[in-house]
Amino acid sequence: MAKVGLVMGSISDWPTMELAAKQLTAMGIDFEKHVISAHRMPDKLQTYGEQAAKRGLQVIIAGAGGAAHLPGMLAANTLLPVIGVPIKTRALNGMDSLLSIVQMPGGVPVATMAIGDAGAKNAALLAAQILGLQDQTTQQAVADFRQRQRQEAEQSERQF
Amino acid sequence: MAKVGLVMGSISDWPTMELAAKQLTAMGIDFEKHVISAHRMPDKLQTYGEQAAKRGLQVIIAGAGGAAHLPGMLAANTLLPVIGVPIKTRALNGMDSLLSIVQMPGGVPVATMAIGDAGAKNAALLAAQILGLQDQTTQQAVADFRQRQRQEAEQSERQF
Amino acid sequence: MAKVGLVMGSISDWPTMELAAKQLTAMGIDFEKHVISAHRMPDKLQTYGEQAAKRGLQVIIAGAGGAAHLPGMLAANTLLPVIGVPIKTRALNGMDSLLSIVQMPGGVPVATMAIGDAGAKNAALLAAQILGLQDQTTQQAVADFRQRQRQEAEQSERQF
Amino acid sequence: MAKVGLVMGSISDWPTMELAAKQLTAMGIDFEKHVISAHRMPDKLQTYGEQAAKRGLQVIIAGAGGAAHLPGMLAANTLLPVIGVPIKTRALNGMDSLLSIVQMPGGVPVATMAIGDAGAKNAALLAAQILGLQDQTTQQAVADFRQRQRQEAEQSERQF
Amino acid sequence: MAKVGLVMGSISDWPTMELAAKQLTAMGIDFEKHVISAHRMPDKLQTYGEQAAKRGLQVIIAGAGGAAHLPGMLAANTLLPVIGVPIKTRALNGMDSLLSIVQMPGGVPVATMAIGDAGAKNAALLAAQILGLQDQTTQQAVADFRQRQRQEAEQSERQF
Amino acid sequence: MAKVGLVMGSISDWPTMELAAKQLTAMGIDFEKHVISAHRMPDKLQTYGEQAAKRGLQVIIAGAGGAAHLPGMLAANTLLPVIGVPIKTRALNGMDSLLSIVQMPGGVPVATMAIGDAGAKNAALLAAQILGLQDQTTQQAVADFRQRQRQEAEQSERQF
Amino acid sequence: MAKVGLVMGSISDWPTMELAAKQLTAMGIDFEKHVISAHRMPDKLQTYGEQAAKRGLQVIIAGAGGAAHLPGMLAANTLLPVIGVPIKTRALNGMDSLLSIVQMPGGVPVATMAIGDAGAKNAALLAAQILGLQDQTTQQAVADFRQRQRQEAEQSERQF
Amino acid sequence: MAKVGLVMGSISDWPTMELAAKQLTAMGIDFEKHVISAHRMPDKLQTYGEQAAKRGLQVIIAGAGGAAHLPGMLAANTLLPVIGVPIKTRALNGMDSLLSIVQMPGGVPVATMAIGDAGAKNAALLAAQILGLQDQTTQQAVADFRQRQRQEAEQSERQF
Repeated sequence: MAKVGLVMGSISDWPTMELAAKQLTAMGIDFEKHVISAHRMPDKLQTYGEQAAKRGLQVIIAGAGGAAHLPGMLAANTLLPVIGVPIKTRALNGMDSLLSIVQMPGGVPVATMAIGDAGAKNAALLAAQILGLQDQTTQQAVADFRQRQRQEAEQSERQF
Repeated sequence: MAKVGLVMGSISDWPTMELAAKQLTAMGIDFEKHVISAHRMPDKLQTYGEQAAKRGLQVIIAGAGGAAHLPGMLAANTLLPVIGVPIKTRALNGMDSLLSIVQMPGGVPVATMAIGDAGAKNAALLAAQILGLQDQTTQQAVADFRQRQRQEAEQSERQF
Repeated sequence: MAKVGLVMGSISDWPTMELAAKQLTAMGIDFEKHVISAHRMPDKLQTYGEQAAKRGLQVIIAGAGGAAHLPGMLAANTLLPVIGVPIKTRALNGMDSLLSIVQMPGGVPVATMAIGDAGAKNAALLAAQILGLQDQTTQQAVADFRQRQRQEAEQSERQF
Repeated sequence: MAKVGLVMGSISDWPTMELAAKQLTAMGIDFEKHVISAHRMPDKLQTYGEQAAKRGLQVIIAGAGGAAHLPGMLAANTLLPVIGVPIKTRALNGMDSLLSIVQMPGGVPVATMAIGDAGAKNAALLAAQILGLQDQTTQQAVADFRQRQRQEAEQSERQF
Repeated sequence: MAKVGLVMGSISDWPTMELAAKQLTAMGIDFEKHVISAHRMPDKLQTYGEQAAKRGLQVIIAGAGGAAHLPGMLAANTLLPVIGVPIKTRALNGMDSLLSIVQMPGGVPVATMAIGDAGAKNAALLAAQILGLQDQTTQQAVADFRQRQRQEAEQSERQF
Repeated sequence: MAKVGLVMGSISDWPTMELAAKQLTAMGIDFEKHVISAHRMPDKLQTYGEQAAKRGLQVIIAGAGGAAHLPGMLAANTLLPVIGVPIKTRALNGMDSLLSIVQMPGGVPVATMAIGDAGAKNAALLAAQILGLQDQTTQQAVADFRQRQRQEAEQSERQF
Repeated sequence: MAKVGLVMGSISDWPTMELAAKQLTAMGIDFEKHVISAHRMPDKLQTYGEQAAKRGLQVIIAGAGGAAHLPGMLAANTLLPVIGVPIKTRALNGMDSLLSIVQMPGGVPVATMAIGDAGAKNAALLAAQILGLQDQTTQQAVADFRQRQRQEAEQSERQF
Repeated sequence: MAKVGLVMGSISDWPTMELAAKQLTAMGIDFEKHVISAHRMPDKLQTYGEQAAKRGLQVIIAGAGGAAHLPGMLAANTLLPVIGVPIKTRALNGMDSLLSIVQMPGGVPVATMAIGDAGAKNAALLAAQILGLQDQTTQQAVADFRQRQRQEAEQSERQF
């Protein structure tokens, strides 16, 4: 059963959000993925948020660009932790996405990641760190990832 | 019957949005005013958007600050023109509000005004200009306002 | 007879503004299109603004880049609603265009759209939403567009 | 036993971070609080990060301003979820804090909140949402908070 | 006869533009001053620009804030050099004014000064430097000003 | 004899500054061109500024990028009007150049143009407008340019 | 004999630069202080830079605001390390100062500090760290400062 | 024995940091180079900083991008002068790197260079200027570099 809901505002966000999907897969975490436009299907967004917990999800990852309302509106409709990924945009390079996601008013948090690819990958890792609090396997998967990433860094240092 | 719905995300937006209310009143335009938080009562936001046209509203003015999702989410739930007013914020001076409102994706427009007081006043004027397309009285009210504002400018010029 | 005046500051703005034209055409809305440089033919700008209403126009869409004065100066010369489209610029990516258009002083509003292509498309949609207030056919065209756009989003979701 | 570690880079961050503390207290969540300067006592930072999980902490909340390295460096030293709060700064209003915290490279996420007070409060709420995944009482506390906040918004709407 | 036209978009710009007036006076340069709102009396703006040279003006100084169209629109209506002063604004501190004035398209230059007080003073000095090219007295006045300003700096150095 | 000194901080600025040269040539204005690095040959910069007027120059155009000190330092060493052209930069797109040039302290103005190509062209036009105050031929050249540019705009409008 | 030259563009920079002076004094480092305006006395700036090394200075600290040319122009006239302190400005909060100082072209570095007070204090510390490479007493003074600052942080932690 | 430690956060920073290495080599300065990720091997970072002086290093050059913590954290662990190079980033062009490096709190300075290539080259030059204070050969190497760079600028001027 999916524990993470990976949602994006548009299919055009997939090349970025795919990095989250790959990282989740690599860590053996079940997830579902959906395109839910906050602006083109607002009722679906609401339903998704309201039912996420009942359906067994534990974390939601939401990527969106520009006036990025998806992460915040999902957060408004659920008590699950919502992780927001600001998608890089053509005109403003994702600064608009970042501010639209991170500057949430007091009361409804969105755990905001870096703009673009690094943010997508880190969304998966943060989800794993959260799940790992109650799941030894996932915790180990994160530890292994960190270990490998350190080894790769050390190797690139050695071969430098 | 109210033709304009004046909505804000928080009661703390009122000192700004009041300028829209005053301008509407001065032009003799019926309006209703509501506090509807996109993040604290998302279902109400949706209902308000969906029923606005049926209830006889013709234009919605929505003010919000920070990760300002109210104008865009209302726009997603109605076919009425939605005018967005970016509220000045403490840390980023309303640049976050502006980008969260204006950078809407293709498909769902929000008519965005200037940050803060000027934007609130102009939201009322734009609403009047829209209503005035089919309502001679309102059109005249806008014309009168423009005339007066010109006269005041000329007078400040004469007394300069 | 044209109901929408589609104006741009330079022929180089056409690749962006064409998206507004296409969207208007798709919704069956009559429009005229003009290149009127605020800085190279300021008198023509003024004449265009002053006569727009008399000539039967109901909405003006104006696109401009950099120190973008066209939308605001047209708004100063007409009581019709003016929709501004900030064109993406080479150095500042359209942030200059956006601020030059949106930060209008109290008294003369410009309904500002997103920077670039999304903004151009949305300008057409907002114009249609405004015209739709008094024209059942246009209102239906907007409703149909929204419906189609939702279906496309749902389809991309299903095929995801 | 403390489940949340509330850390700040300087005692001068307390007026902001106190809002996190208050919100945690209000939700009945045990926490410890510390001043750990990333730059003035870097070894202590490392020790704190390394031992956080062993000491029973489940979430770390870290606030810092300017070149804000505390949240990211704690995240580098632990597998626990780290929530970062960008403190508002005198010259750049916290934009420096925000970018220093949110723009983490792929591999080490920091769950970034809004700049300043709203961010501090939301850090506590996100921590509660994370803890709530495995703790019914905390989950209920979040649900109660949301409910109350909604009621307050509705009341301010009714009295408007 | 006035050689410099000192124009501002609103009487509220006077506290800044007064510094230009004082500097012109101190250098013995005849000037006239006017409030001409680009948006509230666009025809007057055009007339002013068109007749400036005929009326004997040699330089125009124009101050405006926000979506500051006055300097650029005056420049579009005259062949005289136009000096633009970006007025500091409440939300964006004059960054909007600066970009609206300086980012003129190729073909119509505006000589842009610093935001606010320093810019107003410098506008007067630049006007004097331009007039000084054909007027020995004004040239001397600029030279004297520079000399005095240097002496004051040296004195503050000596007393330091 | 050269009336305009066209100076740039680096030979790499030439592709931009060449547009100023071309525009000056097209208007029949004598100019000299130099590469004078403010940072690599500061004494030469000072000498150039000090001797510019004596050598018969009437206007200096200076282009520079990044921490662009050339225009301001030339202005500090001469009483001639100095026109600054902010060169587009790789990292910050010329925003650094713009602020380094335009934000001069009270006492030493630089007439700042738009970032990049438009700015270079406009620098030449502003120089011509300044020279035209005392030189009928140059004034006519500017008038002709404006006329032609208007005709081209009208033609692109007709063929639109 | 002074080892550090503490220079500022204007006496108005003293309230910030005084923090550098105090920190130098506290560490027992001899310094001289001067007001040298890059724009009001450019020849003096050049002389100061050229003679700094001969006069026995080893490091120059230069503070300036706005279009801040002092640090870079000093660096162009000496081979001594130059430390730049961006002064906070009224309109742009020192972002203009920062970019004018830090974005030096390849060939002439300026060691740039944070905007405002923290930057002034740190300029003194960096100067001490540089001097400490060849001077045991100064090195010890820096070590002592660091130790004290750590103790103060730990004490504020203990009393928290 | 290496006098300069050239450190970068990731092997992907090498194309930029290589310019520092080349400049050091060209000036005959011994250096070592390392990849030390602040986030992937925080303990190594600390060890490197703590032992740098004992191992004979006199200056550390550290390049990093995004939430760039490496330079500041190294500075926190050593009394040697640390020079920071902000790497250009994909989304925010290095503005995030710059602010993360330069906005250090009072107490721990980082000598910050320009974003990208110019900054890397200048880091090497600043290191040489610092070493040159106690080493005649290095001082001469810097003087020679400056001389050559001036000659090249003059030659490009002559051939212009």
